[in-house]
Amino acid sequence: MRKVLGKTMLWIRWELLLMAIIFWQRGQTDMNETKQSLGHVSVVIVGGTGDLARKYLWQGFFQLYADQVGKGYTFSFYGGGLSPAGKGTEVLFGILKELTCPSELSAERCALVKEQFLHLAQYHQLKTSEDYEKLIQLIKLQIEQEGMVEAGRLFYLSVPAFSYADIADKINNTCRPSHNAWLRVVLEKPFGHDFGSAQFLSKQLSGRLNEEEMYRIDHYLGKQVVSKILPFRKENKKLLDPIWNKHHIERIEIVLKETLDAKGRIQFYDQYGVIRDVLQNHLTEVMTLMLMNLPANLSNSAEILQNKLNFLASLQYIDRSNAVIGQYQAYNGEVQKELNKTKDYFSLTPTFAGVVIHVDNAQFEGIPIFMTSGKALDERVSYARVLFRRDTFCVQDPNNVQCKSKQIIFFLGHGNLQYPAILVSKNLFKPDLVSSNWKEITEYKDVNVLGLPLNDYYIQSPIVPREAYCELISHVFIGRKDSFISSEGLLASWAFWTPLLDSLAQVFPRLYPGGVANGNLLNFQLRGHQVTFSHEAVVNVIKTGLEENFQVMQGKFRSSDMVSAWAQELVERLASDLLLAAEKAIHEEGQFHLALSGGSSPVALLRSLALNLYTFPWRNTHIWQVDERCVPHTESGSNFQSIHNLLLQHIRIPYFNIHPMPVHLNQRLCVEEDGGPILYEKEINQFVNASRFHYILLGVGHDGHTASLFQDTKLDSHGEQLVTLTESPIKPHQRMSLTFTAINRAQKVGVLVMGKSKHELVTQLSRIKGESTKYPITKVQPKSGTLIWYLDYDALLG
Amino acid sequence: MRKVLGKTMLWIRWELLLMAIIFWQRGQTDMNETKQSLGHVSVVIVGGTGDLARKYLWQGFFQLYADQVGKGYTFSFYGGGLSPAGKGTEVLFGILKELTCPSELSAERCALVKEQFLHLAQYHQLKTSEDYEKLIQLIKLQIEQEGMVEAGRLFYLSVPAFSYADIADKINNTCRPSHNAWLRVVLEKPFGHDFGSAQFLSKQLSGRLNEEEMYRIDHYLGKQVVSKILPFRKENKKLLDPIWNKHHIERIEIVLKETLDAKGRIQFYDQYGVIRDVLQNHLTEVMTLMLMNLPANLSNSAEILQNKLNFLASLQYIDRSNAVIGQYQAYNGEVQKELNKTKDYFSLTPTFAGVVIHVDNAQFEGIPIFMTSGKALDERVSYARVLFRRDTFCVQDPNNVQCKSKQIIFFLGHGNLQYPAILVSKNLFKPDLVSSNWKEITEYKDVNVLGLPLNDYYIQSPIVPREAYCELISHVFIGRKDSFISSEGLLASWAFWTPLLDSLAQVFPRLYPGGVANGNLLNFQLRGHQVTFSHEAVVNVIKTGLEENFQVMQGKFRSSDMVSAWAQELVERLASDLLLAAEKAIHEEGQFHLALSGGSSPVALLRSLALNLYTFPWRNTHIWQVDERCVPHTESGSNFQSIHNLLLQHIRIPYFNIHPMPVHLNQRLCVEEDGGPILYEKEINQFVNASRFHYILLGVGHDGHTASLFQDTKLDSHGEQLVTLTESPIKPHQRMSLTFTAINRAQKVGVLVMGKSKHELVTQLSRIKGESTKYPITKVQPKSGTLIWYLDYDALLG
Repeated sequence: MRKVLGKTMLWIRWELLLMAIIFWQRGQTDMNETKQSLGHVSVVIVGGTGDLARKYLWQGFFQLYADQVGKGYTFSFYGGGLSPAGKGTEVLFGILKELTCPSELSAERCALVKEQFLHLAQYHQLKTSEDYEKLIQLIKLQIEQEGMVEAGRLFYLSVPAFSYADIADKINNTCRPSHNAWLRVVLEKPFGHDFGSAQFLSKQLSGRLNEEEMYRIDHYLGKQVVSKILPFRKENKKLLDPIWNKHHIERIEIVLKETLDAKGRIQFYDQYGVIRDVLQNHLTEVMTLMLMNLPANLSNSAEILQNKLNFLASLQYIDRSNAVIGQYQAYNGEVQKELNKTKDYFSLTPTFAGVVIHVDNAQFEGIPIFMTSGKALDERVSYARVLFRRDTFCVQDPNNVQCKSKQIIFFLGHGNLQYPAILVSKNLFKPDLVSSNWKEITEYKDVNVLGLPLNDYYIQSPIVPREAYCELISHVFIGRKDSFISSEGLLASWAFWTPLLDSLAQVFPRLYPGGVANGNLLNFQLRGHQVTFSHEAVVNVIKTGLEENFQVMQGKFRSSDMVSAWAQELVERLASDLLLAAEKAIHEEGQFHLALSGGSSPVALLRSLALNLYTFPWRNTHIWQVDERCVPHTESGSNFQSIHNLLLQHIRIPYFNIHPMPVHLNQRLCVEEDGGPILYEKEINQFVNASRFHYILLGVGHDGHTASLFQDTKLDSHGEQLVTLTESPIKPHQRMSLTFTAINRAQKVGVLVMGKSKHELVTQLSRIKGESTKYPITKVQPKSGTLIWYLDYDALLG
Repeated sequence: MRKVLGKTMLWIRWELLLMAIIFWQRGQTDMNETKQSLGHVSVVIVGGTGDLARKYLWQGFFQLYADQVGKGYTFSFYGGGLSPAGKGTEVLFGILKELTCPSELSAERCALVKEQFLHLAQYHQLKTSEDYEKLIQLIKLQIEQEGMVEAGRLFYLSVPAFSYADIADKINNTCRPSHNAWLRVVLEKPFGHDFGSAQFLSKQLSGRLNEEEMYRIDHYLGKQVVSKILPFRKENKKLLDPIWNKHHIERIEIVLKETLDAKGRIQFYDQYGVIRDVLQNHLTEVMTLMLMNLPANLSNSAEILQNKLNFLASLQYIDRSNAVIGQYQAYNGEVQKELNKTKDYFSLTPTFAGVVIHVDNAQFEGIPIFMTSGKALDERVSYARVLFRRDTFCVQDPNNVQCKSKQIIFFLGHGNLQYPAILVSKNLFKPDLVSSNWKEITEYKDVNVLGLPLNDYYIQSPIVPREAYCELISHVFIGRKDSFISSEGLLASWAFWTPLLDSLAQVFPRLYPGGVANGNLLNFQLRGHQVTFSHEAVVNVIKTGLEENFQVMQGKFRSSDMVSAWAQELVERLASDLLLAAEKAIHEEGQFHLALSGGSSPVALLRSLALNLYTFPWRNTHIWQVDERCVPHTESGSNFQSIHNLLLQHIRIPYFNIHPMPVHLNQRLCVEEDGGPILYEKEINQFVNASRFHYILLGVGHDGHTASLFQDTKLDSHGEQLVTLTESPIKPHQRMSLTFTAINRAQKVGVLVMGKSKHELVTQLSRIKGESTKYPITKVQPKSGTLIWYLDYDALLG
């Protein structure tokens, strides 16, 4: 201890000496800058001799130190690792000696600063709780002995995510500073591999660290261009406002192309793949910054994080119909080798993905966002591009600059341009500089960037290039939380990506040779909101079997017609059957009366109706409810709420054609005296010809109930009543429901059953002849209408 | 008479002889084609020696005759005119001798057919009723004497529209055939110059002719490519369906460019201008055929006409903000000369127009349709082009054909291609031929058509070119009504164009030099749904004065704040004030409660809110009604209906946030016992904090009423009541309205007053101090809120 202490004192003296020298060099004016001491900051890099620390982190902290020296803070730096002190110290100082000088410092001054930095750094073994305790004692002692005030403690966890909880525990137990000083813990991705694991990890951490103490790094947020997206939008708000919307933006592309492959990193990579590795985090952050609502105040982190959350919540649900995936051909061999797998092992991990995302708000709806990334491609480049619609009609003079394509590009690096920059095509506007640290580029190389020669752009670029980690380390130091991923933001992003990842779990990626040889093999295109590769694959090495052989199957189930298919095809078939029924009814009667169930089954159907069927005659369609839970319509859990959010808010249906069940009369829920069922029945009688709905869509519960008609419901007591209150065995207990009288009067009844979990029920139902009070669904027997079962293969075949 | 008769008999003999010769020439097999007589058709061209008849009509009837000869019908042709018989006959036969041979006939056979045609034609003076009667007597006699059956009578009115009613009268009175034969009357445009005049004309005609007897010509419908738009869409339906919608179409262009000017036709042209001359009819028809719902049956005229009507009804309202207009510089001189005007006379008639139209249905909403036409431009060309979005993401290989632009072009003629054709870019699909009379073109000239070299297109074109009039005359003959403009279709088109024409009445067109010298002067571009020239005009010869000098003015009116501006700026200002109020309220309370009035004043405001303010926080806004007429919400006249159609159906507002006044309870209107006002008051109390609306938007009637609070309403009797039933002096008398108690409790009240007709009222109001029972509006005095008057210059300054 004594020895260590001695060394610490030596540092302090060194530090003061260095400051003196620097000020002396700067001359008299700079002396005014000498601040009173703002306190001491201890930096601990856990994993301080690892790869990331070697490549970026120490360099970042060195830059921080160089920036801060003489401004009032004092520092000490600790590299922690699993190796014992001797070996660790050697490795650490090996790294530190290689640190390069920040370009703004003269070689002479840099040498001084670097020497001092090396004196402030130490290696410590950080394995056990005792190790952490020892380190903290050392820090405390040093601060005490030097009579300093503690400003804060910064822990940078550059270790595998599985050890976060444990280390966070140790930090929480033994490493918290006195209450006037801050604690900041920096974490590196991966933060989980789907929503569930991210939530788990997040909960683990939140028990140990406060939200404001956690700094989750996405190094894209430290890239100079990315960090200037919001300032660019703010600075040029007046010019952007009129065009930053669905009427002017044709498409957005967010792209990270790599020439590298995953060789040597398969152990990590094969668990994640390109979507988790790049799209869920880096590219999602870029998209968010481009399209979130501009905060009123760019330095208000809370507002920025909240606006990010709002944006993520407005993304349209995606699944595998919105994505294409690929895998470079050599990948599987690398997997077999690095993971010790046999020759018949196939990894489904994608190394390429193209996804099209849509935003579900009035400003951006309908704009396709092409997000794509891949390894082993022809070029290394990264950019985000906003391509505007050709909004000009060139009556004459089509070569005029006004008639060329209009775009704004956030160019992150590499590619033809080679430096980070923001490019605005000259036929849009001349943007203001985003910062005094940026410059306009007016010398044009003779290259094309995304379809236009350089001199068709206004170009701005940072004067001094800075590494993302340098930038972010400085942001941790000043506590700029909006440069980091909040817990809520993380979960929101995973909530968006997880359904896609789940639906891709069994999908075979298209194989591509890698590099220029990929040709057009990976180009992909939109059809509606769906995405496919533009070219048929010539060879599909891996046979997918079942999916290709089965399409839609028709047959009988419980002596009624049955349609069966894979979930997606089934839903599409049902949607188009509904369209036919609607067209027929409208042709005959001018109106189509459709009653929809709640529950989970119709979700995919409602989505399909909302987004894929452009010609559905909504103006002449009336939407009714089959059943409703006795909760206010504005609360989640309400069937109407879910019909509203999935369907109604996406379509152009007259207000008057929407018929929610009146479960909330006189500000109370389903009270007998309020006569909700009678009211709804009146409404049905008034609008629906002979009270015969044209189509009623039902689901089935695991217990065989349908609508909100349960085993215990006195099903035979309804007589001519069309609507009734019932009791569900599951919360919320109170329900309102159409009766079998109403259901069996309909012209068509469709029963949609999906998912493996319904297979047992389906098997039982197929064995029961006629009615069974145990299974209310068996009472669905339209008197003069038809019943059709829609069963997906999972439900039918298990 | 005898002489005439003799001549008729001679014709008949000639006709039989000719048929014999033709059949003899064709040989034995053709003899089987000899049909039994299908009857006699008399064709009367009123205006038979005029310009149109000379250029197209006689040629068309000659073609008809050549097509029909030997197929069972017999014909006689009468040219009618104002000249006496001698001179007229001479002119007519001068025309007939110049008729050219249909290309499918051999020279020899053509000579025979033509000789016969000349024998079947006569000139008659058609001035008085007696003239018509004489002609009909002649026709009757001929038919009788030859023992023929009459098939029909075809009158082609090639005369100015003002004489339609008179001639139709004569036809109706004296020219109707016996009831087994048809009467068809062909009319040439112009059919009115706005909705009112078209309606008047239509009524005049409908008293004299039945709808099925009228054939209104738009010669564009006879153009070969135009007539194949529907067959093309039908034939390629499967391939088009997935892309013929807003997700894939980026824009549509419908273009007719002329190099000619209007010199020599000013007498006609200056009354009409390019919008009435070309856009309202020709280009609107092309647009309709491209975007209307495909009929199930292409030969069902009624279905086609109905679908056209539906389409026209779905067009979004346009006014001058959606158009740019120009006038070639020499035009005004021509006007002064041809109309004998002085040198200070300025014509505002546009010779160029660019309009952007949007369709208001789920399939096409958001797609801009650039419709443009002009005289004295650089090139003669006419086409309609569907440009698809760049839906492909080219990860690599950007020169691949998939990555080029995708378009379908209905090329009507001239331009680079020189022949009519349908072009489909090869990266879309290979279309089927639209008809066996069309051929695929595979020899490519080395030219570019709309951005792509010819060999990037699949091209199809008619084998034999045919004049539009030939086509249409044959369609009149076979009674294909869908090739003509129905009365309803005509009125629907005028209903769409009239608001634009009215709003342009005082607008000065941009002057352009004409020809190539126009450069980029006429290029125009979209901003939201609005349109402006892309380039500032360098010289604006005609000063518009007031409009340019005044912008938005602020001041005091009746001791409250006042904002005044030209109508459009005023509405935009009010809309943005509403946005500010909404943002403030939502920031403070999470919700914005807005009460909207009915009537005509808010129409432009609602439109602006719906279409121009992308960022309006509708999800947190509640819409209430200030007042309502006691009519069902689904009927026109309902204020809610108008709020719904103008605003609600365009925005993404939760269903739950919409609060229509309950004027229709228990299936009856505003019955006291149903307690509508009490119900609405309860709803207000439930949702609106302290029942203080954040914003109430009012208008003022000419009689000084506001909301539905009239002079005779017992305004002081409402006490604490927020909602009441009132009686209006104007129908419908019964109303529901917020009371002054509710209004004066609001945080902000805006009163919007627009139009010259309100100027007198505004003047009176400005003189009244304090309240006056004569003017209920004076009782608007928010207790702890603010009142702002929004008066447009028309209302303020008269």
